Amino acid sequence: MEGKMKVAVMQDIRKLEFVEREIPKIKKNEVLVKLEYVGVCGSDLHFYEQGCIGNIKVNPPFVLGHEPGGVVVEVGEDVQDLSVGDRVALEPGKTCGHCEFCKTGRYNLCPNVEFFATPPYDGVFQEYVAHDASLCFKLPDNVSTMEGALIEPLAVGFHAAFQGEAHAGQTVVVMGAGCIGLVTLMALKAVGVSKVYVVDVMDKRLEKAKELGAAEIINGKNKDAVEEVLKLTEGKGCDLVIETAGTEITTHQAIRMTKRGSNIVLVGYSKTGEMTLPMSLVLDKELTFKTVFRYRHRYPLAIEAVSEGKVNLKGIVTNEYNLEDIQEAMDNCVDHKEDIVKAVIKIS
Amino acid sequence: MEGKMKVAVMQDIRKLEFVEREIPKIKKNEVLVKLEYVGVCGSDLHFYEQGCIGNIKVNPPFVLGHEPGGVVVEVGEDVQDLSVGDRVALEPGKTCGHCEFCKTGRYNLCPNVEFFATPPYDGVFQEYVAHDASLCFKLPDNVSTMEGALIEPLAVGFHAAFQGEAHAGQTVVVMGAGCIGLVTLMALKAVGVSKVYVVDVMDKRLEKAKELGAAEIINGKNKDAVEEVLKLTEGKGCDLVIETAGTEITTHQAIRMTKRGSNIVLVGYSKTGEMTLPMSLVLDKELTFKTVFRYRHRYPLAIEAVSEGKVNLKGIVTNEYNLEDIQEAMDNCVDHKEDIVKAVIKIS
Amino acid sequence: MEGKMKVAVMQDIRKLEFVEREIPKIKKNEVLVKLEYVGVCGSDLHFYEQGCIGNIKVNPPFVLGHEPGGVVVEVGEDVQDLSVGDRVALEPGKTCGHCEFCKTGRYNLCPNVEFFATPPYDGVFQEYVAHDASLCFKLPDNVSTMEGALIEPLAVGFHAAFQGEAHAGQTVVVMGAGCIGLVTLMALKAVGVSKVYVVDVMDKRLEKAKELGAAEIINGKNKDAVEEVLKLTEGKGCDLVIETAGTEITTHQAIRMTKRGSNIVLVGYSKTGEMTLPMSLVLDKELTFKTVFRYRHRYPLAIEAVSEGKVNLKGIVTNEYNLEDIQEAMDNCVDHKEDIVKAVIKIS
Amino acid sequence: MEGKMKVAVMQDIRKLEFVEREIPKIKKNEVLVKLEYVGVCGSDLHFYEQGCIGNIKVNPPFVLGHEPGGVVVEVGEDVQDLSVGDRVALEPGKTCGHCEFCKTGRYNLCPNVEFFATPPYDGVFQEYVAHDASLCFKLPDNVSTMEGALIEPLAVGFHAAFQGEAHAGQTVVVMGAGCIGLVTLMALKAVGVSKVYVVDVMDKRLEKAKELGAAEIINGKNKDAVEEVLKLTEGKGCDLVIETAGTEITTHQAIRMTKRGSNIVLVGYSKTGEMTLPMSLVLDKELTFKTVFRYRHRYPLAIEAVSEGKVNLKGIVTNEYNLEDIQEAMDNCVDHKEDIVKAVIKIS
Repeated sequence: MEGKMKVAVMQDIRKLEFVEREIPKIKKNEVLVKLEYVGVCGSDLHFYEQGCIGNIKVNPPFVLGHEPGGVVVEVGEDVQDLSVGDRVALEPGKTCGHCEFCKTGRYNLCPNVEFFATPPYDGVFQEYVAHDASLCFKLPDNVSTMEGALIEPLAVGFHAAFQGEAHAGQTVVVMGAGCIGLVTLMALKAVGVSKVYVVDVMDKRLEKAKELGAAEIINGKNKDAVEEVLKLTEGKGCDLVIETAGTEITTHQAIRMTKRGSNIVLVGYSKTGEMTLPMSLVLDKELTFKTVFRYRHRYPLAIEAVSEGKVNLKGIVTNEYNLEDIQEAMDNCVDHKEDIVKAVIKIS
Repeated sequence: MEGKMKVAVMQDIRKLEFVEREIPKIKKNEVLVKLEYVGVCGSDLHFYEQGCIGNIKVNPPFVLGHEPGGVVVEVGEDVQDLSVGDRVALEPGKTCGHCEFCKTGRYNLCPNVEFFATPPYDGVFQEYVAHDASLCFKLPDNVSTMEGALIEPLAVGFHAAFQGEAHAGQTVVVMGAGCIGLVTLMALKAVGVSKVYVVDVMDKRLEKAKELGAAEIINGKNKDAVEEVLKLTEGKGCDLVIETAGTEITTHQAIRMTKRGSNIVLVGYSKTGEMTLPMSLVLDKELTFKTVFRYRHRYPLAIEAVSEGKVNLKGIVTNEYNLEDIQEAMDNCVDHKEDIVKAVIKIS
Repeated sequence: MEGKMKVAVMQDIRKLEFVEREIPKIKKNEVLVKLEYVGVCGSDLHFYEQGCIGNIKVNPPFVLGHEPGGVVVEVGEDVQDLSVGDRVALEPGKTCGHCEFCKTGRYNLCPNVEFFATPPYDGVFQEYVAHDASLCFKLPDNVSTMEGALIEPLAVGFHAAFQGEAHAGQTVVVMGAGCIGLVTLMALKAVGVSKVYVVDVMDKRLEKAKELGAAEIINGKNKDAVEEVLKLTEGKGCDLVIETAGTEITTHQAIRMTKRGSNIVLVGYSKTGEMTLPMSLVLDKELTFKTVFRYRHRYPLAIEAVSEGKVNLKGIVTNEYNLEDIQEAMDNCVDHKEDIVKAVIKIS
Repeated sequence: MEGKMKVAVMQDIRKLEFVEREIPKIKKNEVLVKLEYVGVCGSDLHFYEQGCIGNIKVNPPFVLGHEPGGVVVEVGEDVQDLSVGDRVALEPGKTCGHCEFCKTGRYNLCPNVEFFATPPYDGVFQEYVAHDASLCFKLPDNVSTMEGALIEPLAVGFHAAFQGEAHAGQTVVVMGAGCIGLVTLMALKAVGVSKVYVVDVMDKRLEKAKELGAAEIINGKNKDAVEEVLKLTEGKGCDLVIETAGTEITTHQAIRMTKRGSNIVLVGYSKTGEMTLPMSLVLDKELTFKTVFRYRHRYPLAIEAVSEGKVNLKGIVTNEYNLEDIQEAMDNCVDHKEDIVKAVIKIS
C-alpha cells in the first residue's frame, strides 16, 4: 500500500512529536495492519519518563508502543491464514527460530528477538505496521481490537499462571492490583483457580480486583497481609503467590504466606533492581521462585479466554485517548500512575 | 536387648559428656541398630558451637549426630525386610505419613517429622538406636557402614541434582567444595552430567574436587568465576548452578553465569539468613530458583551409586575419630573448619 | 455408639438381603459416619451381575457400595479436624502409608489398600461406617451429602483431566457420555478447558452432555467422529482425548483425531480386557497414553468445584432409590443400563 | 564448489545404480559437506526391499541414506560457527521453524520437515551434500566421522531414554538388542542408569549387549522374560521398559514386568502396524505409554557422550562397506538381518 502515515515519535524525555513516514512495504510472509488500538504499558512509560530501563537506553528518534490491535489491509503472497479485513492482535516480538531457545520452544528468551518499542526496534504508536503473519492472531467476532491490543498484557498474566503451575483447587495470592496484577487474577480464574486473593495498598485498585473476580481483597496498609492469608487458609498458607508489585516487602510476605514446597512467581521488577530477601526461610520451606520474562505461546489461549467471557479485558481500561492526544496521555499516565490502571490509545 | 550404652551428651555449648543410658527397646516395626559410624555434619557443629540454628535452640542435655551407619542386632516382630546382621544406612527423619506433604510424596516437608539431632529430638552419637525398619536401608556387601553413614549427605547432593533437573549433556557449576559441594559434584556425575565445574576459594578443596571428578576447578580468589565459566562455555553460560557455599557473592555469580531460562539450586544457608540479590536480572533471564531442604526418596539410589563405584564416598573423609575422642573431634571441626572436609566418628 | 444397623448384603449373584449388624466401633483416629447417600457405580453392578471383575471375585456374604456421603456422629479421641454433625464425603480407600507408592505420593497404587466394596473388603450399602478421619472430607454448607457421595466418581474425572495435563486453551474430546464421561466433561470445564466435545452413540446421553457444558456433541452412529473433530478443529485435530467408553473403536478414533504429540487418557475398561490398536500410528504421531486407576489427592478440589458451582453433580443423577428398595435399584441399573446415567441410594 | 559427484541411486526395488550429479551449490546459511561415512538404517532397508514403509512410497530415482558424517569443505556466507575442515555429524531433518510443533520445541513433529531419504526427499548415499549449518554438529577431535554418522541412531536411543524419564537408581529393561536396542542401552547408561537388562532371542546380540554394558541379559527363547525380571527385582518389577523389538509378545511382557505407575517407551514398529494388547492390565497398573518418533535436541549430548567415552559407538558396527560395494552392502543387510547389527558405508 502506497502512502504516508502519522507516527508519534519520542524525540526526548517526555517529548513526543508527530512525524509523517512512508507506510511500510510488506514482505511475502507479512501482512500490513491498520492499527486501531495500542495499549500503554509501564515499560513505555519508563522509557518516556526516564529514557531507559536499566541498561537499555532510548536513542531518539524512537517510537514507543507494543500492545497493538488492528485490521489487516494487505496480505503478503506467502500468507495463507489471514485475509484483508481480519481483525488481529499482534504479538510484538519477532524471534530468530534457530537459536537454542527458539529450538527448544522458549522463544521469549531468544537473544535475537526484535521486539516492538525495545531499543533499537521501534514500536507502534503509529497508523500502520508490517508484521509477520505468524505473529498476527485473528480475533473472533466477539473480541474487539481494543481487547486485541490488551491481549499482550493478558499473555503476561497467563504466562505467570502457567509458570506457577496454577491449577484448580489451589488458593493463590496475587500481590499488586495494577494492570499486570489484574490480568493475572483473571488468567488464574480462567485456568481454574477459584480462590484468588489480591493484595494492594490502594482501595480503588482492590475494588477493581473484587469486581473482576478476586475471592478476597486485602489492603496491606491496614492489615498484615501474611496474617490475613494465614487466617483465610486456616493457618495453612496459600499454595502459590504471584508477585506483580515488585517490592521487597511484598516478596517477603510472599515467602512467609506460602505453604512449604510452593511456587512463588516473580513478575514485578523492583525499582533498584535488587532485593534483600530471607533466603534461609526460602530454603527451610523448600520454595521455588519462578520468574516471568514476557510470555510464549499464550496469545491463542488468551484470545479464547476473552472470547469465552472468562476474562473481562474491557474491565481494566480506565482511560482512552486519541492518537492526537498521545502526549497528554503519556503525561497523565506518568503523573497520575495511581489513578490510571490501564490506558489505551485509539489510533483511528 | 537388655543393657546399657554409652551416649555422648551435649551439656552446654562446646561441652560433651558421656552418659550411660538404657539400650532402647524396639517397637514391632523397628530394628535395633548397633552404630558403627556417625558422620559429623555442619548442623551438628552449629548446635555445638552456638547452641542454636536460627530459631531452633538446643536445650541440654541433648544428643547430636544424624548421619548413622551400623548393624542390625534386633528385629521387631512386624519387620520383614531386615535381619540381624544386616548392615544399614539410617535415614534420620521419621515422618507422619498422613499430612498433606507426606500424602503427596514430599515427606521432607512434613511438619511432624522427628529428625535425629534436631531439637527436641535426640541424635545418635551413641552406641545403639531403635529406628523404623522402613528408614533403615540395607547396604550391599561392597558398601561399608562408614559409607553408610555418609549416605545422608550424599542424599542431599542427589536431591540437589534432582531438584535442578540435572541431566546428561549439561554443563553444571557447583559453588563451594565443602562436603555438600563435593557430594553434589559426585551426584551430578552419577546422574550423567559430564561437565561439572567447581568453584571455591581454597586450593586444597578444589584439588579434592578435581580428584573426585570435576572437569574444571576455579579458584574464585584468583579469577573471576563468572568470566571463567563464560570462557569455558564459549560465552553461552552454564546450564545449571548448584550453590552450596551460602554466600551472597556466589549466588550473584550463579545468576550471572547461567544461561537464560536455567535453574539455580540453592543448598547453602547464608550466615545472616538474608541475601541481597539482583532480582531484576533473575527476571530478565527468566531463571528459576529451586531449593533443597534435606531430601526425599534418595537413599536407595545413593546407596546404589556408591555400590556401583560411581560415587567415591571414602574420598571425602579427611578425619576419623573414635567415640571416646568426640569432644576433641567436635572442637577440631569447629576450630579447623578449613582443613576438615568431613569427619566421621567411629562408634565401635 | 451402641446399637444395630441395617446392612444390604450380597448373598449371591443378583441377590441382596438385609442383615442386622453391630454399629462399628471407632478407633482413635476414626469417625463414625451415619450414611445418607451411597452412589451406585459400574463396578458395583459388575460384581452384582457377574460376581467378579476380571480375577477379583466376590465371596458372599459381601457388601457393595463405595461412593458414600453422610454425617459424622462420633469422633475418635485423636481426631482434630472433624466434629459431630459435620457432613462428609468419604474417600473409600485406606492405604498403608509406607510402601514405595504411598511414600512417593501415588497412594492409589498402594498394593495394601483396603478399598470399600473391593473383595475382600466390604462396602457401605449400610447405615453406618467407621472410617479414618483423614479420609472423610468435610462438605461446605452448599454441598449436599448426595453430592458428597458423588465426589467419588467426580474424583475420577478430575484425575483423568490431571493425568492428561488438560488446561485452558485446549480442545478436548471425551469419548463416552456415561457417568464417568460426564464427570470428566465437568472436570475439564473446571480446570479451564472451554472446548470439550463429547462423543457417544445415544442422543439422550449426548443431550445430557450438552446440558452439562459440552461445546459440541457428536453422535458416532450418525457421523464419523474423527471427521467431525477434524472439521471442528480446522483439520488440526484435538489436543487431548479422554476415552471413557472402553471400546476399541473409540480408542482407534482417539488415536486418529488427536494432534501429533498429544496425550490420550484411557479410563474405560474394555469388556474383554484386550484391544487391537494401530500402534504404528501411535508412534508416528508420538502420542502418549496415560491411564487412570481410581484417583489420588482429588477430593478437596472436587468438593471445591461443586461448592463453587463449577460442577453440577446433581445434574447427572437420573434415579434415586431408598435403601429398602436397593434390590430393585440394582436390578434396574443392570437391566436398563442405557436409561440410567447415575443412580443413588438414599440411606436415611 | 564446482564439479561432479557420485550418487548411488535406487532405480527399483533392490536395484542401485551409480549416477553422476552436480555437486550441490550451498545457500548462505548452508555448508557443503564431503561425506565420509553413512550408516545403513532399517528404514533404508525397508525402502530398498519393499519400496515403501506403510503409506510412504519410493518413486525412483531415489537416494537412500540418512545417517551421515563428513567434513566441511565450503561454508555459506552467513555461517558463523563452522569452518572448512570441521568434521561434523549431520542431523537429517530440516524443519519449518514456524508451525505449532516447531514453536513449542517439538520440531521432530513438524509436518513440513524435509528429512533425508524420506520420500520425496533424497538421502545421502553420495559424495557431497549441502545442508543447513545449524544441523551440522561439529565433532570433537576424539570422535571420528564414522561415529559421527552413528550419532543419528544414538539420538534415537537418547530420545527414548528421555521420553521414558530414565534416571539414576532405576532398573530398566530394553526389549530387543538390535542397533536401536543397543544404542538405547548405552544411552541409558549415559544418563545414569546402572541396571539395564536386555532381552532378545539371539545369543549373539545378547553377548554384544553384555559387552556394551548390560547388567543382565535374558534370552527370551530359553526363559520367561517376565519371570526373570521379577526374579532379578525381588518381585517388584522394573521401573521402565524401552521396547525396541516391535513385537506384540515383547510389548505384552513389558506391560507385565513393570511396576505399577511406570513408563513403557515404544520405539519398535510392529510389522503389521497393529498390536493386540492387554489394555485393562495397563489401566490397572496405571502405566504410561510414551512413544518415540525420531528425536529432538539430542545431537549435542549424544556427541558429548561418545567423546566422554560413555557410549561405545564403534562397538555396534559389525560391517563396513565401500561406496562402490553399496549394492552388495544393502543386499547383505537385507538377506542376513540376523548377523548384521549395524553396517556403515565408507564414502571416501
